[in-house]
Amino acid sequence: MRAAVVAVGDELLDGRVTDTNSSMLAGKLSQLGVEVVLAQVIGDSLDAVVRGIRDAVELADVVLVTGGIGPTADDRTREALAVLTGRVLVEDAASWAAIRAIFDSRGLEVPESNRQQALCPEGATVLVNHTGTAPGFCVDIDDVRVFVMPGVPSEARRMFDDEVAPQLDVGSTSHTETLCFGGVSESLLGGMLQRYLSEGGAVRVGITSSWGLLRVTARADTKRALDDVISEIRSAGKRWFVGTGYRELEDLVAERAIASATTLAVAESLTAGLATARLGRVAGISSVLLEGVVTYSNASKTSRLGVSEQTLSEHGAVSEQCAREMAEGLARTSDAGLAASATGIAGPSGGSDAKPVGLVWLATTLDGTTETRERRYGPVGRDIIRNRAASDLLLMMLQRLLP
Amino acid sequence: MRAAVVAVGDELLDGRVTDTNSSMLAGKLSQLGVEVVLAQVIGDSLDAVVRGIRDAVELADVVLVTGGIGPTADDRTREALAVLTGRVLVEDAASWAAIRAIFDSRGLEVPESNRQQALCPEGATVLVNHTGTAPGFCVDIDDVRVFVMPGVPSEARRMFDDEVAPQLDVGSTSHTETLCFGGVSESLLGGMLQRYLSEGGAVRVGITSSWGLLRVTARADTKRALDDVISEIRSAGKRWFVGTGYRELEDLVAERAIASATTLAVAESLTAGLATARLGRVAGISSVLLEGVVTYSNASKTSRLGVSEQTLSEHGAVSEQCAREMAEGLARTSDAGLAASATGIAGPSGGSDAKPVGLVWLATTLDGTTETRERRYGPVGRDIIRNRAASDLLLMMLQRLLP
Repeated sequence: MRAAVVAVGDELLDGRVTDTNSSMLAGKLSQLGVEVVLAQVIGDSLDAVVRGIRDAVELADVVLVTGGIGPTADDRTREALAVLTGRVLVEDAASWAAIRAIFDSRGLEVPESNRQQALCPEGATVLVNHTGTAPGFCVDIDDVRVFVMPGVPSEARRMFDDEVAPQLDVGSTSHTETLCFGGVSESLLGGMLQRYLSEGGAVRVGITSSWGLLRVTARADTKRALDDVISEIRSAGKRWFVGTGYRELEDLVAERAIASATTLAVAESLTAGLATARLGRVAGISSVLLEGVVTYSNASKTSRLGVSEQTLSEHGAVSEQCAREMAEGLARTSDAGLAASATGIAGPSGGSDAKPVGLVWLATTLDGTTETRERRYGPVGRDIIRNRAASDLLLMMLQRLLP
Repeated sequence: MRAAVVAVGDELLDGRVTDTNSSMLAGKLSQLGVEVVLAQVIGDSLDAVVRGIRDAVELADVVLVTGGIGPTADDRTREALAVLTGRVLVEDAASWAAIRAIFDSRGLEVPESNRQQALCPEGATVLVNHTGTAPGFCVDIDDVRVFVMPGVPSEARRMFDDEVAPQLDVGSTSHTETLCFGGVSESLLGGMLQRYLSEGGAVRVGITSSWGLLRVTARADTKRALDDVISEIRSAGKRWFVGTGYRELEDLVAERAIASATTLAVAESLTAGLATARLGRVAGISSVLLEGVVTYSNASKTSRLGVSEQTLSEHGAVSEQCAREMAEGLARTSDAGLAASATGIAGPSGGSDAKPVGLVWLATTLDGTTETRERRYGPVGRDIIRNRAASDLLLMMLQRLLP
């Protein structure tokens, strides 16, 4: 099955917003074994949307469109689908009721403009939006099924998982499994798995990386072939293996902490809560996550965690010694089983020759034993430095929790 | 001038890598006053590259291609341009010398496969690569100039700035400005701006929403026309206006805090650091952000912020009283000028009839005065509840900082 992805919105074409829906959908489709042959970003004008979807329909068996179904006059995707299918737009009674219910629950009058969100081409199937007001829909153009979803990434993601993926006929007799690895580069692990990655035919293996984690997904026609390749991959990457399933680092940390009844606390400086917030994503984390402390100022490091003023003046806030005292002070004040800390220079200014932008110190304290780790990411940008530091901190926590 | 952007690479179509070149180039083009009408991501096959560039040439006056000019067999962009221009590929002597010099300087033998990077269609102009081995080039197809650049983002960025931008004849630039609004729904504001949003005419207006902020961008051919529409939009949305420019909520909070020399601290429960981490995104925030506290457990709320055990037992952790005590306790312990707090039920479990999933209490303390705000988002999913709560907390902070 071949898919094309179309993202609609002027804001995606003038640099204001980076389209993340297309790569999110491409990744999910790829996981399902669907080949993505085209991703297009087009503007809000009716002509552009019609042309973009028509081009996609010519190349693919299924087309996924995001964006252009909001309540305002510059949302033209519905009209475009009416043009392309040659059908009129009709109001879906259930969608209109659902939109009204959302506004009712917030004690608000529903604006008349939201009523257009209940429109879809006659004969279309409505896709329920569990997280926002705009329902999606799907229609067929010739033999190609076109799914239309909201542009808001969280809504598109949820709608794909709940409403679109189950409808895709991927001919899935194939078996699939994912292994997660941490602390290894994609090129190194990829090199070791070269023969699986290049192989066509009965077993297909792909690697994806996201903050701090490499995921190797194998797909095979038989359970037996899958088990064989998975056990070979697992033994090849044994040193870096951290878990199974298509997961995020924070899911694995939570799983291990809950299984071992280890309570958690996190002290962050440059990451300012990124690592703690990622743990907070996991439902049920409240059974193990006690607290986090974002000690941005030096005074906060001292008052909240007891970092000594001598350490700050002699070694500075970005030092192994400070990271260590942050983690140990947090273990003491929070009473958590595993306490972790990160301090570093996110930039763009504040670096020096001895301590360049991108220098980060991490520490973890478990059962009275502290480990530290230095990272030097280089001047790769504030966002990337902060996200890598948070990921490496979560990875360090996970490694300490592994049996 | 109308531009189209084409990114080439299988890895961009299966979720392994997110294409960031297109939005980077779109942003730069937009700043130069060039309208981007299409961004396409296509796979590595020769057919796909030929078709993708041909489609782009039909729609635009200038086409920017990134990727597919590496040294391996799956890099087909050069061949595609040879097909499209009907010219043979020839070796550029200067490029080949430059590639050899790079390897020499690293003390390495140059692999024969890198020699293909010196090829370009006969008559093309070479674009020097100051940061990698692959030179770019530009050729004309009919009246459309096509620039071909490397896929590595840092190389593409540098080549655009140094080699491509100076060659673009941007002619008449359009004028553009963005206003930010908070605390109003897209449908309500969009309704008020209905007549501007309709397509066509000399002025084009679009609305985008991202966590907690609506941004209205106007574009016009003359400065005068732009000023007129911007002042009308600003007065229509006066109640909700929070700032100018294409910004995020955290940028506006940081700007106002720095301008008014107000220090900041944030106490978070359900959001677990999301709001603090967003503030941490802003370069220079360390001059005003003192600290954050993620008081996930009840014990932490008491020990870190002095929330009374009576409040927790009588009103619960998700209550107006608890939010108030969190903010006031944080103002006291952090000594920040503005202290903010969020507590709520992110779900999926833990809700009751009286306190359903999605219930959130926010509080801010400024100069000894505390304000509280209740939000009921409904059971829209853990991620969305947490992100909305963080956004609403940042908005509340911004509103207290506005003059």
